Amino acid sequence: MKYYALFLVLMTGLTTQAQQDSTVVKSIYDEVLLNGQAYDNLKILCTTVGHRLSGSPAADKAVIWGKNTLIASGADTVYLQEVQVPVWVRGNKEVVRVSAGKSLRPLHACSLGGSVGTNGLLNAEVIEVLGVEELVKLTENEVKGKIVFFNKPMDPRKISTFEAYGACVDQRHAGAGEAAKLGAVAVLVRSMSLAIDEHPHTGSMGYPEGAERIPALAISTQDANWLHNQLITNKQGAIKIGIESNCEFKGYKTSYNVIGELRGAKNPERIMVVGGHLDSWDKGQGAHDDGAGCVQSIETLRLFKSLGIRPNNTLRVILFMNEENGNMGGKTYAKEVNAAQEKHVLAFESDRGGFTPRGVHMDAPVENIKTIAGYKGILEYYGLHVFEKGYSGVDISPLKQGEGSINPDLLMLGLLPDSQRYFDYHHADTDVIEAVNPRELHLGAGAMAALVYLIDKNFQFK
Amino acid sequence: MKYYALFLVLMTGLTTQAQQDSTVVKSIYDEVLLNGQAYDNLKILCTTVGHRLSGSPAADKAVIWGKNTLIASGADTVYLQEVQVPVWVRGNKEVVRVSAGKSLRPLHACSLGGSVGTNGLLNAEVIEVLGVEELVKLTENEVKGKIVFFNKPMDPRKISTFEAYGACVDQRHAGAGEAAKLGAVAVLVRSMSLAIDEHPHTGSMGYPEGAERIPALAISTQDANWLHNQLITNKQGAIKIGIESNCEFKGYKTSYNVIGELRGAKNPERIMVVGGHLDSWDKGQGAHDDGAGCVQSIETLRLFKSLGIRPNNTLRVILFMNEENGNMGGKTYAKEVNAAQEKHVLAFESDRGGFTPRGVHMDAPVENIKTIAGYKGILEYYGLHVFEKGYSGVDISPLKQGEGSINPDLLMLGLLPDSQRYFDYHHADTDVIEAVNPRELHLGAGAMAALVYLIDKNFQFK
Repeated sequence: MKYYALFLVLMTGLTTQAQQDSTVVKSIYDEVLLNGQAYDNLKILCTTVGHRLSGSPAADKAVIWGKNTLIASGADTVYLQEVQVPVWVRGNKEVVRVSAGKSLRPLHACSLGGSVGTNGLLNAEVIEVLGVEELVKLTENEVKGKIVFFNKPMDPRKISTFEAYGACVDQRHAGAGEAAKLGAVAVLVRSMSLAIDEHPHTGSMGYPEGAERIPALAISTQDANWLHNQLITNKQGAIKIGIESNCEFKGYKTSYNVIGELRGAKNPERIMVVGGHLDSWDKGQGAHDDGAGCVQSIETLRLFKSLGIRPNNTLRVILFMNEENGNMGGKTYAKEVNAAQEKHVLAFESDRGGFTPRGVHMDAPVENIKTIAGYKGILEYYGLHVFEKGYSGVDISPLKQGEGSINPDLLMLGLLPDSQRYFDYHHADTDVIEAVNPRELHLGAGAMAALVYLIDKNFQFK
Repeated sequence: MKYYALFLVLMTGLTTQAQQDSTVVKSIYDEVLLNGQAYDNLKILCTTVGHRLSGSPAADKAVIWGKNTLIASGADTVYLQEVQVPVWVRGNKEVVRVSAGKSLRPLHACSLGGSVGTNGLLNAEVIEVLGVEELVKLTENEVKGKIVFFNKPMDPRKISTFEAYGACVDQRHAGAGEAAKLGAVAVLVRSMSLAIDEHPHTGSMGYPEGAERIPALAISTQDANWLHNQLITNKQGAIKIGIESNCEFKGYKTSYNVIGELRGAKNPERIMVVGGHLDSWDKGQGAHDDGAGCVQSIETLRLFKSLGIRPNNTLRVILFMNEENGNMGGKTYAKEVNAAQEKHVLAFESDRGGFTPRGVHMDAPVENIKTIAGYKGILEYYGLHVFEKGYSGVDISPLKQGEGSINPDLLMLGLLPDSQRYFDYHHADTDVIEAVNPRELHLGAGAMAALVYLIDKNFQFK
């Protein structure tokens, strides 16, 4: 009887706690769906700043926007953290022309980020390969003096478009380096997109230490399909491509991570990071990638503040600089955390677009994943059904590398929105505010705030 | 030992069955994501036919499109079923002007479907109410001779936008009838949309038997907000609205349900209906509502055919006519089913847009819902996580009404896509092919085909 009474007390306690959590989570969603500021903030970023590659004047403007927006959203501390970022400039609009005796047509193309330019007209024969794995089977004899056309498509059969992306993005990252080894003079890479359209998608590439640096450009998926057909129907060697580009690397410059905090009431020394990246590629407006993650992170803080929810641990919003081409923001942040021996308990990134959220990927010990998956009971009503082990995000990843000095039990979370449309916009002119639905964006912010609230309130940090 | 062996045999059997199902489901998704025809079919419907209100010449063209597309998709029988449909025409573009002494501005407006026109200029004072529930509290004295402005917004806090829609669409359906009882001369209704923009959304309305018929028009959400502010800032009675419209009901006409079948191998007399509605409102291109459901239903048949999956029961695709303003297609179909005493075992409708599917709503006995929810193990990988009791669809609903003569155990399913964007497009100029993402549409078709396959193969029909 005694035990039964105790059991009842415990059960009632649990139920009351769960009910209370449920009520707070509802108030978070109600607020973001009624009065959410994330979309308006994103619209201002997109239309007054636009795209903002690290080291560009627009990135400087974005830093000011970030600082002001965090202050307006109720952060009790806002500051900038210096980050040294590479400066790469695209130069004039790239020209890529296909000929077969006579001029056939220009392609929709753009230099990949980090590429050298042709600096004048580069004209050569072209050879098509289905990804790096096919290129490396060729001999120098087959490749020397040619332009290599990497045409491995993203696999449409993958339900997660990120999986499809991961399986062929090496041709963009490393294709030029591998082709240069065999004597190629340039590379064209099929855009990393599942949409068949005219928009070239840029993105980062690099050269191996000491290797020959040859120009690398993306072409649109439509043009990649067309070029593929031309190479089949014309006799070998007939197709020539002329490329003109003058992008270049211009050294390093000081930029900033933008940081805003809501000080924890009980354990202010414990840090919960919520963030996205402020820089974008120099295409479109960086709306989904990753303006969305920035405004959702800011909104998480605003939701706590406006609802009067004081976190137990300190909530720190970080708008990271330079995720796209160097991750210097993430690396610098982790370095300074290590130096200061700051205790981090949670790092939560949003960098997969502002679409309806489906859940989270978690990079954490299995028992902690189970604990967080236990919040599904409250969150499934809001459409969150995936609580799985998985990758969390580029910006926060250096926090993991320094395990010894940070916290081996650090919870690393990545928001998981529906991925179907993401690569239609990723790194392309199409990534603009019009491609973002306010409700979908706000549901993502609600999901982040709700999870941060539940973790802050209930998780037993060591 | 004997039992253990039997158990092993059974378990192995089950596992093999589940594995086989899983393999077929994967082949369905692979095919639709690689070679899906639904998007191309929808593009043809949207761009060569466009919107297609019942009784319009475009609806006749859509019937021919449906027939030809079903034949091309591999149906072994294609036929038309006569349906008597109402003919309602919009007439000239509606004019709604607001004045307060001087002319203020025109509103983006359109007559609601079924409304009478003003046939000349109607000019009157305006009174705003927050839905029908507020109107009915007013006296005849307060309403007589005025235009009633119904301005109850959809509640943004509802996670399911259909729930928000359901909670205030009565002002569109029944607002005019209620207002006329109190002597109103016309009604303006806030568009049923969560987007704040300039597009008026039409939709059906009706008059009670024998009641005064007064004109009913929708105005855009942006204009509704503006008008609300004008009514607050101007003194009572100062705001007047002039309306001109000449829409009218023109009697009935013969149209058609379009039907295509894949005959069942084992139980051809058992019918599995899969369908959407072919008619649309006379706005946009009826892309999401419900071109999407039509092409997904046709694609379900094409997937079976092209993968060589012969169903045990007959798969019958129905493109219903006149869902939007009368449901004569659904009613006629159910009537003929009753007359012919055809045994229906499944009715599966897609009429919530071509967005990434989340699951299904089911209208069936609880034990049958449980059985179907058991397929979640196979389907969750494809993003389907909601398997709940709920409304299935308007077109198939008359099949339920005739329970006695059809099948009380009929499984009624409605596809449940992510609902966030749906009402941005619903019944408005914005419902065009550009608002449809091919992968999201195709995942919906995959979900329908996979569920039909699993039910056809495994469900123990009485």
